[in-house]
Amino acid sequence: MELSEKVADKKKPIKWLASKTTDQWLKQAIENPIEILMDHAHCERKAAGVAVQLMFRYLSEPGLAEVLSPLAREELEHFELVLDILHSRGKTLLPLAAPPYGAKLSKQIRREEPCRMLDMFLVSGLIEARSHERMSLLALNSPDKELKVLYGNLLKSEARHFGIYWNLADERFQRSVIISRLNELAEVEAEILSKLHHHPRMHS
Amino acid sequence: MELSEKVADKKKPIKWLASKTTDQWLKQAIENPIEILMDHAHCERKAAGVAVQLMFRYLSEPGLAEVLSPLAREELEHFELVLDILHSRGKTLLPLAAPPYGAKLSKQIRREEPCRMLDMFLVSGLIEARSHERMSLLALNSPDKELKVLYGNLLKSEARHFGIYWNLADERFQRSVIISRLNELAEVEAEILSKLHHHPRMHS
Repeated sequence: MELSEKVADKKKPIKWLASKTTDQWLKQAIENPIEILMDHAHCERKAAGVAVQLMFRYLSEPGLAEVLSPLAREELEHFELVLDILHSRGKTLLPLAAPPYGAKLSKQIRREEPCRMLDMFLVSGLIEARSHERMSLLALNSPDKELKVLYGNLLKSEARHFGIYWNLADERFQRSVIISRLNELAEVEAEILSKLHHHPRMHS
Repeated sequence: MELSEKVADKKKPIKWLASKTTDQWLKQAIENPIEILMDHAHCERKAAGVAVQLMFRYLSEPGLAEVLSPLAREELEHFELVLDILHSRGKTLLPLAAPPYGAKLSKQIRREEPCRMLDMFLVSGLIEARSHERMSLLALNSPDKELKVLYGNLLKSEARHFGIYWNLADERFQRSVIISRLNELAEVEAEILSKLHHHPRMHS
Protein backbone atom coordinates (compact mmCIF):
# COMPACT_ATOMS: atom_id res chain seq x y z
CA MET A 1 0.00 0.00 0.00
CA GLU A 2 3.04 2.27 0.14
CA LEU A 3 2.45 3.59 -3.37
CA SER A 4 -1.17 4.41 -2.70
CA GLU A 5 -0.15 6.79 0.03
CA LYS A 6 2.24 8.79 -2.05
CA VAL A 7 1.24 11.80 -4.09
CA ALA A 8 2.27 12.85 -7.53
CA ASP A 9 4.79 15.24 -6.02
CA LYS A 10 8.06 14.01 -7.48
CA LYS A 11 10.43 15.57 -4.98
CA LYS A 12 9.22 14.06 -1.75
CA PRO A 13 6.43 11.52 -1.53
CA ILE A 14 3.74 12.54 0.95
CA LYS A 15 2.14 10.10 3.35
CA TRP A 16 -1.58 10.85 3.43
CA LEU A 17 -3.01 8.11 5.59
CA ALA A 18 -2.31 7.75 9.30
CA SER A 19 -3.54 4.15 9.49
CA LYS A 20 -3.79 1.05 7.37
CA THR A 21 -7.15 -0.49 6.56
CA THR A 22 -7.87 -3.50 8.74
CA ASP A 23 -8.46 -7.11 7.65
CA GLN A 24 -11.88 -6.71 9.25
CA TRP A 25 -12.89 -4.14 6.62
CA LEU A 26 -11.51 -6.25 3.79
CA LYS A 27 -13.47 -9.27 5.02
CA GLN A 28 -16.67 -7.19 5.28
CA ALA A 29 -16.12 -5.72 1.81
CA ILE A 30 -15.36 -9.03 0.12
CA GLU A 31 -18.42 -10.63 1.69
CA ASN A 32 -20.66 -7.83 0.33
CA PRO A 33 -19.36 -7.14 -3.18
CA ILE A 34 -22.56 -5.65 -4.64
CA GLU A 35 -23.20 -3.31 -1.73
CA ILE A 36 -19.59 -2.12 -1.92
CA LEU A 37 -19.92 -1.69 -5.67
CA MET A 38 -23.07 0.41 -5.26
CA ASP A 39 -21.42 2.45 -2.55
CA HIS A 40 -18.44 2.90 -4.81
CA ALA A 41 -20.73 4.28 -7.53
CA HIS A 42 -22.09 6.77 -4.97
CA CYS A 43 -18.52 7.71 -3.99
CA GLU A 44 -17.61 8.49 -7.60
CA ARG A 45 -20.78 10.55 -8.01
CA LYS A 46 -20.09 12.42 -4.77
CA ALA A 47 -16.44 13.01 -5.73
CA ALA A 48 -17.62 14.55 -9.01
CA GLY A 49 -20.10 16.66 -7.04
CA VAL A 50 -17.35 17.91 -4.71
CA ALA A 51 -15.09 18.87 -7.63
CA VAL A 52 -17.95 20.77 -9.33
CA GLN A 53 -18.88 22.40 -6.00
CA LEU A 54 -15.29 23.59 -5.53
CA MET A 55 -15.36 25.03 -9.05
CA PHE A 56 -18.45 27.03 -8.06
CA ARG A 57 -17.09 28.15 -4.71
CA TYR A 58 -13.72 29.32 -6.02
CA LEU A 59 -14.99 30.65 -9.30
CA SER A 60 -12.15 32.94 -10.23
CA GLU A 61 -9.28 31.14 -8.51
CA PRO A 62 -6.67 30.79 -11.28
CA GLY A 63 -5.71 27.23 -12.16
CA LEU A 64 -8.47 25.59 -10.14
CA ALA A 65 -11.28 24.90 -12.62
CA GLU A 66 -8.63 23.84 -15.13
CA VAL A 67 -7.80 20.76 -13.06
CA LEU A 68 -11.08 20.17 -11.24
CA SER A 69 -13.19 20.04 -14.39
CA PRO A 70 -11.24 17.10 -15.93
CA LEU A 71 -11.19 15.48 -12.47
CA ALA A 72 -15.00 15.72 -12.24
CA ARG A 73 -15.30 14.26 -15.73
CA GLU A 74 -13.12 11.31 -14.79
CA GLU A 75 -15.13 10.63 -11.63
CA LEU A 76 -18.32 10.66 -13.72
CA GLU A 77 -16.74 8.25 -16.22
CA HIS A 78 -15.94 5.88 -13.37
CA PHE A 79 -19.46 6.28 -12.03
CA GLU A 80 -20.81 5.21 -15.43
CA LEU A 81 -18.39 2.27 -15.54
CA VAL A 82 -19.57 0.97 -12.17
CA LEU A 83 -23.19 1.54 -13.20
CA ASP A 84 -22.60 -0.59 -16.32
CA ILE A 85 -21.29 -3.48 -14.22
CA LEU A 86 -24.24 -3.21 -11.85
CA HIS A 87 -26.64 -3.27 -14.83
CA SER A 88 -24.85 -6.23 -16.41
CA ARG A 89 -25.51 -8.10 -13.17
CA GLY A 90 -29.20 -7.20 -13.20
CA LYS A 91 -28.85 -4.63 -10.43
CA THR A 92 -29.88 -0.99 -10.33
CA LEU A 93 -28.20 1.62 -8.18
CA LEU A 94 -30.00 1.92 -4.86
CA PRO A 95 -29.66 4.76 -2.38
CA LEU A 96 -27.50 3.58 0.53
CA ALA A 97 -27.34 5.11 3.98
CA ALA A 98 -23.99 6.88 4.11
CA PRO A 99 -21.51 5.87 6.82
CA PRO A 100 -20.54 8.66 9.27
CA TYR A 101 -17.14 9.04 7.52
CA GLY A 102 -17.89 11.90 5.08
CA ALA A 103 -19.96 13.99 7.48
CA LYS A 104 -17.41 13.62 10.29
CA LEU A 105 -14.58 14.65 7.99
CA SER A 106 -16.56 17.62 6.63
CA LYS A 107 -17.01 18.88 10.18
CA GLN A 108 -13.24 19.33 10.33
CA ILE A 109 -13.34 21.95 7.57
CA ARG A 110 -12.72 25.35 9.13
CA ARG A 111 -15.12 28.11 8.13
CA GLU A 112 -12.84 31.07 7.53
CA GLU A 113 -10.78 31.49 4.36
CA PRO A 114 -8.10 30.61 3.41
CA CYS A 115 -8.24 27.76 5.99
CA ARG A 116 -11.48 26.58 4.45
CA MET A 117 -9.90 26.17 1.05
CA LEU A 118 -6.89 24.31 2.42
CA ASP A 119 -9.11 22.00 4.48
CA MET A 120 -11.37 21.28 1.52
CA PHE A 121 -8.38 20.26 -0.59
CA LEU A 122 -6.93 18.10 2.18
CA VAL A 123 -10.20 16.42 3.17
CA SER A 124 -10.93 15.67 -0.49
CA GLY A 125 -7.40 14.35 -0.93
CA LEU A 126 -7.68 12.19 2.19
CA ILE A 127 -10.93 10.65 0.98
CA GLU A 128 -9.34 9.96 -2.41
CA ALA A 129 -6.26 8.47 -0.73
CA ARG A 130 -8.37 6.17 1.45
CA SER A 131 -10.52 5.12 -1.51
CA HIS A 132 -7.37 4.37 -3.43
CA GLU A 133 -5.90 2.30 -0.59
CA ARG A 134 -9.10 0.28 -0.27
CA MET A 135 -9.51 -0.17 -4.02
CA SER A 136 -5.94 -1.51 -4.09
CA LEU A 137 -6.95 -4.05 -1.43
CA LEU A 138 -10.00 -5.07 -3.48
CA ALA A 139 -7.96 -5.27 -6.68
CA LEU A 140 -5.53 -7.58 -4.90
CA ASN A 141 -7.94 -9.68 -2.87
CA SER A 142 -11.36 -9.77 -4.51
CA PRO A 143 -12.34 -13.34 -5.44
CA ASP A 144 -14.59 -11.89 -8.18
CA LYS A 145 -12.42 -11.58 -11.30
CA GLU A 146 -14.50 -8.88 -12.99
CA LEU A 147 -14.40 -6.72 -9.86
CA LYS A 148 -10.69 -7.39 -9.41
CA VAL A 149 -10.10 -6.02 -12.92
CA LEU A 150 -12.50 -3.11 -12.40
CA TYR A 151 -10.82 -1.91 -9.20
CA GLY A 152 -7.40 -2.46 -10.76
CA ASN A 153 -8.33 -0.27 -13.74
CA LEU A 154 -9.92 2.47 -11.65
CA LEU A 155 -6.83 2.59 -9.42
CA LYS A 156 -4.62 3.78 -12.24
CA SER A 157 -6.43 7.08 -12.60
CA GLU A 158 -7.63 7.36 -9.00
CA ALA A 159 -3.98 7.49 -7.96
CA ARG A 160 -3.71 10.86 -9.69
CA HIS A 161 -6.67 12.33 -7.84
CA PHE A 162 -5.14 12.86 -4.44
CA GLY A 163 -2.07 14.16 -6.27
CA ILE A 164 -4.31 16.81 -7.84
CA TYR A 165 -5.62 17.92 -4.44
CA TRP A 166 -2.08 17.95 -3.10
CA ASN A 167 -0.93 20.17 -5.96
CA LEU A 168 -3.89 22.52 -5.49
CA ALA A 169 -2.84 22.95 -1.86
CA ASP A 170 0.89 23.09 -2.60
CA GLU A 171 0.47 25.87 -5.17
CA ARG A 172 -1.33 28.08 -2.65
CA PHE A 173 -0.06 27.30 0.88
CA GLN A 174 3.26 26.91 2.68
CA ARG A 175 4.48 23.35 2.70
CA SER A 176 4.88 23.32 6.51
CA VAL A 177 1.30 24.61 6.99
CA ILE A 178 -0.07 21.93 4.69
CA ILE A 179 1.83 19.07 6.30
CA SER A 180 0.89 20.12 9.81
CA ARG A 181 -2.83 20.39 8.91
CA LEU A 182 -2.72 17.17 6.88
CA ASN A 183 -1.32 15.33 9.89
CA GLU A 184 -4.16 16.61 12.09
CA LEU A 185 -6.81 15.65 9.55
CA ALA A 186 -5.22 12.27 8.85
CA GLU A 187 -5.36 11.48 12.59
CA VAL A 188 -9.08 12.30 12.64
CA GLU A 189 -9.64 10.23 9.49
CA ALA A 190 -7.87 7.22 11.02
CA GLU A 191 -9.83 7.65 14.25
CA ILE A 192 -13.17 7.68 12.35
CA LEU A 193 -12.28 4.40 10.63
CA SER A 194 -10.83 2.76 13.75
CA LYS A 195 -14.20 1.19 14.54
CA LEU A 196 -15.75 -0.76 11.66
CA HIS A 197 -19.15 0.68 10.64
CA HIS A 198 -21.88 -1.97 10.62
CA HIS A 199 -22.91 -1.35 6.99
CA PRO A 200 -20.40 -2.46 4.36
CA ARG A 201 -19.19 0.70 2.62
CA MET A 202 -16.02 1.93 0.89
CA HIS A 203 -15.50 4.03 4.03
CA SER A 204 -17.04 1.78 6.70
CA MET B 1 -33.24 28.48 -36.54
CA GLU B 2 -35.91 25.89 -37.17
CA LEU B 3 -33.56 22.98 -36.53
CA SER B 4 -32.37 24.41 -33.25
CA GLU B 5 -35.86 24.29 -31.88
CA LYS B 6 -36.49 20.67 -32.67
CA VAL B 7 -35.66 17.83 -30.33
CA ALA B 8 -34.16 14.48 -31.00
CA ASP B 9 -37.62 12.97 -31.02
CA LYS B 10 -37.83 11.49 -34.49
CA LYS B 11 -41.60 11.15 -34.73
CA LYS B 12 -42.72 14.71 -34.23
CA PRO B 13 -40.35 17.63 -33.81
CA ILE B 14 -41.10 19.72 -30.74
CA LYS B 15 -41.01 23.48 -30.74
CA TRP B 16 -39.31 24.58 -27.53
CA LEU B 17 -38.99 28.32 -27.90
CA ALA B 18 -41.95 30.71 -27.97
CA SER B 19 -39.93 33.60 -29.40
CA LYS B 20 -36.99 34.26 -31.65
CA THR B 21 -33.93 36.07 -30.39
CA THR B 22 -33.90 39.70 -31.45
CA ASP B 23 -31.32 41.49 -33.58
CA GLN B 24 -30.77 43.69 -30.54
CA TRP B 25 -29.34 40.75 -28.59
CA LEU B 26 -27.18 39.65 -31.49
CA LYS B 27 -25.76 43.16 -31.83
CA GLN B 28 -25.04 43.33 -28.08
CA ALA B 29 -23.40 39.89 -28.15
CA ILE B 30 -21.26 40.57 -31.20
CA GLU B 31 -20.06 43.87 -29.74
CA ASN B 32 -18.96 42.11 -26.52
CA PRO B 33 -17.40 38.82 -27.63
CA ILE B 34 -15.18 38.22 -24.58
CA GLU B 35 -17.89 38.93 -22.04
CA ILE B 36 -20.23 36.59 -23.94
CA LEU B 37 -17.49 33.96 -24.08
CA MET B 38 -16.91 34.20 -20.32
CA ASP B 39 -20.62 34.02 -19.69
CA HIS B 40 -20.80 31.03 -21.98
CA ALA B 41 -18.10 29.30 -19.88
CA HIS B 42 -20.23 29.98 -16.80
CA CYS B 43 -23.30 28.59 -18.59
CA GLU B 44 -21.48 25.33 -19.40
CA ARG B 45 -20.29 25.05 -15.81
CA LYS B 46 -23.79 25.72 -14.48
CA ALA B 47 -25.32 23.24 -16.92
CA ALA B 48 -22.91 20.57 -15.65
CA GLY B 49 -23.84 21.55 -12.09
CA VAL B 50 -27.56 21.18 -12.84
CA ALA B 51 -27.06 17.73 -14.39
CA VAL B 52 -25.03 16.57 -11.36
CA GLN B 53 -27.60 18.12 -9.00
CA LEU B 54 -30.41 16.20 -10.76
CA MET B 55 -28.39 12.99 -10.39
CA PHE B 56 -28.21 13.65 -6.64
CA ARG B 57 -31.86 14.58 -6.29
CA TYR B 58 -33.24 11.61 -8.22
CA LEU B 59 -30.68 9.13 -7.00
CA SER B 60 -32.51 5.92 -7.75
CA GLU B 61 -34.59 7.03 -10.72
CA PRO B 62 -33.87 4.35 -13.35
CA GLY B 63 -32.29 5.62 -16.55
CA LEU B 64 -31.61 9.12 -15.25
CA ALA B 65 -27.97 9.08 -14.11
CA GLU B 66 -27.17 7.01 -17.20
CA VAL B 67 -27.88 9.98 -19.46
CA LEU B 68 -27.16 12.90 -17.13
CA SER B 69 -23.65 11.76 -16.22
CA PRO B 70 -22.40 11.80 -19.87
CA LEU B 71 -24.30 15.08 -20.36
CA ALA B 72 -22.48 16.64 -17.37
CA ARG B 73 -19.16 15.39 -18.75
CA GLU B 74 -19.85 16.96 -22.11
CA GLU B 75 -20.77 20.31 -20.52
CA LEU B 76 -17.50 20.22 -18.56
CA GLU B 77 -15.58 19.45 -21.74
CA HIS B 78 -17.14 22.49 -23.37
CA PHE B 79 -16.34 24.57 -20.30
CA GLU B 80 -12.67 23.55 -20.65
CA LEU B 81 -12.73 24.34 -24.37
CA VAL B 82 -14.02 27.86 -23.75
CA LEU B 83 -11.50 28.30 -20.92
CA ASP B 84 -8.69 27.35 -23.32
CA ILE B 85 -9.76 30.01 -25.81
CA LEU B 86 -9.98 32.61 -23.05
CA HIS B 87 -6.47 31.67 -21.88
CA SER B 88 -5.12 31.76 -25.44
CA ARG B 89 -6.34 35.36 -25.59
CA GLY B 90 -4.65 36.26 -22.33
CA LYS B 91 -7.92 36.33 -20.39
CA THR B 92 -8.90 34.52 -17.19
CA LEU B 93 -12.45 33.60 -16.32
CA LEU B 94 -14.00 36.35 -14.21
CA PRO B 95 -17.16 36.03 -12.13
CA LEU B 96 -19.98 37.83 -13.95
CA ALA B 97 -23.22 39.08 -12.43
CA ALA B 98 -25.87 36.67 -13.67
CA PRO B 99 -28.79 38.09 -15.67
CA PRO B 100 -32.23 37.54 -14.08
CA TYR B 101 -33.00 34.75 -16.63
CA GLY B 102 -31.97 31.65 -14.64
CA ALA B 103 -33.43 32.77 -11.32
CA LYS B 104 -36.72 33.81 -12.90
CA LEU B 105 -37.03 30.48 -14.70
CA SER B 106 -36.16 28.52 -11.56
CA LYS B 107 -39.00 30.27 -9.75
CA GLN B 108 -41.37 28.51 -12.17
CA ILE B 109 -40.37 25.08 -10.88
CA ARG B 110 -43.23 23.72 -8.81
CA ARG B 111 -42.31 22.30 -5.40
CA GLU B 112 -44.31 19.11 -5.25
CA GLU B 113 -43.31 15.92 -7.05
CA PRO B 114 -43.73 14.74 -9.75
CA CYS B 115 -44.38 18.29 -11.05
CA ARG B 116 -41.01 19.37 -9.75
CA MET B 117 -39.23 16.73 -11.78
CA LEU B 118 -41.13 17.59 -14.97
CA ASP B 119 -40.47 21.30 -14.50
CA MET B 120 -36.76 20.72 -13.86
CA PHE B 121 -36.47 18.75 -17.09
CA LEU B 122 -38.41 21.36 -19.07
CA VAL B 123 -36.64 24.41 -17.61
CA SER B 124 -33.26 22.74 -18.24
CA GLY B 125 -34.35 21.86 -21.77
CA LEU B 126 -35.59 25.40 -22.42
CA ILE B 127 -32.29 26.90 -21.28
CA GLU B 128 -30.42 24.45 -23.52
CA ALA B 129 -32.72 25.24 -26.44
CA ARG B 130 -32.22 29.01 -26.02
CA SER B 131 -28.44 28.58 -25.68
CA HIS B 132 -28.49 26.50 -28.82
CA GLU B 133 -30.53 29.08 -30.74
CA ARG B 134 -28.18 31.88 -29.68
CA MET B 135 -25.03 29.85 -30.37
CA SER B 136 -26.40 29.20 -33.86
CA LEU B 137 -26.74 32.97 -34.33
CA LEU B 138 -23.17 33.52 -33.14
CA ALA B 139 -21.87 30.69 -35.34
CA LEU B 140 -23.56 32.34 -38.33
CA ASN B 141 -22.87 35.98 -37.57
CA SER B 142 -19.76 36.36 -35.44
CA PRO B 143 -17.09 38.41 -37.25
CA ASP B 144 -14.43 36.60 -35.15
CA LYS B 145 -13.48 33.47 -37.08
CA GLU B 146 -12.21 31.48 -34.10
CA LEU B 147 -15.43 32.15 -32.18
CA LYS B 148 -17.52 31.34 -35.25
CA VAL B 149 -15.84 27.92 -35.42
CA LEU B 150 -16.08 27.41 -31.64
CA TYR B 151 -19.82 28.07 -31.50
CA GLY B 152 -20.35 25.99 -34.63
CA ASN B 153 -18.56 23.02 -33.06
CA LEU B 154 -20.31 23.32 -29.71
CA LEU B 155 -23.67 23.46 -31.47
CA LYS B 156 -23.33 19.95 -32.81
CA SER B 157 -23.41 18.37 -29.39
CA GLU B 158 -25.50 21.05 -27.67
CA ALA B 159 -28.31 20.15 -30.07
CA ARG B 160 -28.55 16.77 -28.35
CA HIS B 161 -28.88 18.28 -24.89
CA PHE B 162 -32.42 19.57 -25.03
CA GLY B 163 -33.31 16.28 -26.75
CA ILE B 164 -32.00 14.49 -23.64
CA TYR B 165 -34.22 16.57 -21.35
CA TRP B 166 -37.16 16.01 -23.67
CA ASN B 167 -36.61 12.25 -23.57
CA LEU B 168 -36.27 12.27 -19.77
CA ALA B 169 -39.68 13.96 -19.58
CA ASP B 170 -41.23 11.89 -22.35
CA GLU B 171 -40.28 8.58 -20.67
CA ARG B 172 -42.02 9.60 -17.45
CA PHE B 173 -44.95 11.89 -18.25
CA GLN B 174 -47.94 11.98 -20.58
CA ARG B 175 -47.19 13.74 -23.83
CA SER B 176 -50.17 16.11 -23.42
CA VAL B 177 -49.09 17.07 -19.89
CA ILE B 178 -45.55 17.80 -21.07
CA ILE B 179 -46.63 19.89 -24.07
CA SER B 180 -49.07 21.91 -22.03
CA ARG B 181 -46.49 22.68 -19.33
CA LEU B 182 -43.77 23.33 -21.89
CA ASN B 183 -45.99 25.91 -23.57
CA GLU B 184 -46.54 27.69 -20.26
CA LEU B 185 -42.84 27.71 -19.43
CA ALA B 186 -41.84 28.75 -22.95
CA GLU B 187 -44.16 31.76 -22.68
CA VAL B 188 -42.49 32.80 -19.42
CA GLU B 189 -39.06 32.24 -20.95
CA ALA B 190 -39.91 34.44 -23.94
CA GLU B 191 -41.35 37.10 -21.65
CA ILE B 192 -38.14 37.18 -19.55
CA LEU B 193 -36.06 37.77 -22.67
CA SER B 194 -38.47 40.26 -24.23
CA LYS B 195 -36.55 43.15 -22.68
CA LEU B 196 -32.81 43.10 -23.34
CA HIS B 197 -30.77 42.91 -20.11
CA HIS B 198 -28.19 45.69 -19.87
CA HIS B 199 -25.23 43.32 -19.38
CA PRO B 200 -24.24 41.26 -22.43
CA ARG B 201 -24.93 37.63 -21.54
CA MET B 202 -25.90 34.41 -23.34
CA HIS B 203 -29.34 34.96 -21.78
CA SER B 204 -29.52 38.77 -21.65
